[in-house]
Amino acid sequence: MITAVLGGGQLARMLALAGAPLGLRTRCLDPSPDAVAGHVAELLVGAYDDPALLQRLADGAAVCTFEFENVPVATTEWLMGHSTVLPHPRALGVGQDRLHEKTLFRELGIGTAPFAIAATRDELRQAVATVGTPCIVKTRRLGYDGKGQVRLAAGADQAAIDAAFATLTAGGYAHALIAEGFVRFDRELSVLAARGRDGRVVTWPLVQNEHEHGILARSRAPAPQLEPRLQREADLFAAALLEHLDYVGVLAVELFEVGGKLLANEMAPRVHNSGHWTIEGSVCSQFEQHLRCVHGLPLGDTGMAGSGYATMVNLIGEMPDRARLLALPGVHLHDYGKSPRAGRKLGHATVVAASRDEADALAARVRG
Amino acid sequence: MITAVLGGGQLARMLALAGAPLGLRTRCLDPSPDAVAGHVAELLVGAYDDPALLQRLADGAAVCTFEFENVPVATTEWLMGHSTVLPHPRALGVGQDRLHEKTLFRELGIGTAPFAIAATRDELRQAVATVGTPCIVKTRRLGYDGKGQVRLAAGADQAAIDAAFATLTAGGYAHALIAEGFVRFDRELSVLAARGRDGRVVTWPLVQNEHEHGILARSRAPAPQLEPRLQREADLFAAALLEHLDYVGVLAVELFEVGGKLLANEMAPRVHNSGHWTIEGSVCSQFEQHLRCVHGLPLGDTGMAGSGYATMVNLIGEMPDRARLLALPGVHLHDYGKSPRAGRKLGHATVVAASRDEADALAARVRG
Repeated sequence: MITAVLGGGQLARMLALAGAPLGLRTRCLDPSPDAVAGHVAELLVGAYDDPALLQRLADGAAVCTFEFENVPVATTEWLMGHSTVLPHPRALGVGQDRLHEKTLFRELGIGTAPFAIAATRDELRQAVATVGTPCIVKTRRLGYDGKGQVRLAAGADQAAIDAAFATLTAGGYAHALIAEGFVRFDRELSVLAARGRDGRVVTWPLVQNEHEHGILARSRAPAPQLEPRLQREADLFAAALLEHLDYVGVLAVELFEVGGKLLANEMAPRVHNSGHWTIEGSVCSQFEQHLRCVHGLPLGDTGMAGSGYATMVNLIGEMPDRARLLALPGVHLHDYGKSPRAGRKLGHATVVAASRDEADALAARVRG
Repeated sequence: MITAVLGGGQLARMLALAGAPLGLRTRCLDPSPDAVAGHVAELLVGAYDDPALLQRLADGAAVCTFEFENVPVATTEWLMGHSTVLPHPRALGVGQDRLHEKTLFRELGIGTAPFAIAATRDELRQAVATVGTPCIVKTRRLGYDGKGQVRLAAGADQAAIDAAFATLTAGGYAHALIAEGFVRFDRELSVLAARGRDGRVVTWPLVQNEHEHGILARSRAPAPQLEPRLQREADLFAAALLEHLDYVGVLAVELFEVGGKLLANEMAPRVHNSGHWTIEGSVCSQFEQHLRCVHGLPLGDTGMAGSGYATMVNLIGEMPDRARLLALPGVHLHDYGKSPRAGRKLGHATVVAASRDEADALAARVRG
């Protein structure tokens, strides 16, 4: 059985590595001949909206899925007409559009930061007045890892707002902007959830995430001092989203914890960086689970693997010395095989341990 | 960095899957275009002694290694002249030749069953008289999974011996035969060991193996009721072999436990079926470890992963229903992607659990 994957980066690569033991072969489509999933899977190279390539991608595949959410509409339409596509592309539409996403959160009773939409400079001034400062102004569409956003400090004046507008609309790729009130959160968490073709929903333990320069640096699972009440709240958020979207596959929701309550920041309709720890830290990894979901197989166990605690560290910009890392006890290296570049996610390392402190101490040694 | 592997079966496939997270790419050579490592690695198809193909195999590879021991001499000679080959092919020579192997065991103080060599029918009668009956007559070279051997019952007569000779020399592929006294063992064990380029030796906990129809059916790790004394004896055997052969990589030794003592049955100079449990059951799998060894990287931790107990079940001849297997809690499926055929190893399943009984009970459910 073949899984067709749109995109051939590290997420597709880890899907392919998880699929092989299940007897699943992976075929990816990516514009780059250097796409690293090609090291372990069949790689088709070309544009995402090339019908001849999409035909080859879907040919004989049991299901088509995605490693990223910004899939061109023409692509999803073609695939929907020729194959089984999971998760349903309506979830991509939500993930591509911050307004749609936040509106859906609100409809489902999921808390968010205050937000307001703005298409013009004047509207942005009004939106910032509505949500107050400090705030973050983002493009309504696209943008990830801190790109496509500008932070406005407390008391930011008209000039600062106008400068943010100019920055975010330069190049003309922003359909509109969204101003989000700045949340003084106690910590950032994420919930990773999966829904099978039969509608069964499972979640993994909540993860605490730490960002540096707008990029995820470290995830700790389970989140320290995790109250069952908080996990239940996150599980309800995830289940509401999955069911509303009739979603099949793995989905991640980034959350803020504020005074013991959760606010949703954004969702990712795919396997997610904050779930990479599941490869060794959970009985069933997010990659295997996504494949189980989209192929209609029984869902796997999302409990912590034997050791009980996991910490994942991203390896960004340049790879640390491999021999040094591998000499650390119990460190699991994941080198994506990518060329180094500033700010680029080149790999991650996961440590599993029998205590929170031990996992974190070892993770600190990974970072050197 | 590229690992070149002679052979493209399931062992090469699992080496490739273990190499990818270390940033290692895998290139295999196999006579069959259906070789299953080709699903997750570059596959060259052709004869093992084709110099043009060997050139392509070795081109740019950091190291060449093997997934099987019966490598043609011409192949190893070519590779030795053009690349780094690990483990050193002298170990293949030992593993290919039961007489050489058993003689080496004896030289190193490793116990074996009584044995005698025979090139002719008359010599086989003499050899059987020497070791006594019951005994097993095997071809000196080749043979695995119960092939290339005939068992002689207690009191077997000349006609039975002559028939064994005729069976094993039919087709003329046997250089000679070896008669091995039948050992009334208490159980079959194996020790899996690895030696780095720096000479460091590590071993995994001893495994108890159960064969059916001459093929490995189940491995349990650690072996039940494992006395530290027995593990120490096995560790000494493995270390003596590894050091004598100046071996680099993973090696397995199949053992009989007889009255609290160990006898060596045979060695395999490669990753081994009785070590497949290490993928989930040990901190570092045999596949990752072999790659760490041959690439000169620090060796990994051979301790049991968090859960503490693992049982591996081979899936032979036909695959059980995948959905049924995946519905069992904590079962890790490894489908090699091969076509079904009677007696063929198509995959394995490993269960990890916090107790011996739990692991075995779950493994029994895998077998249905």
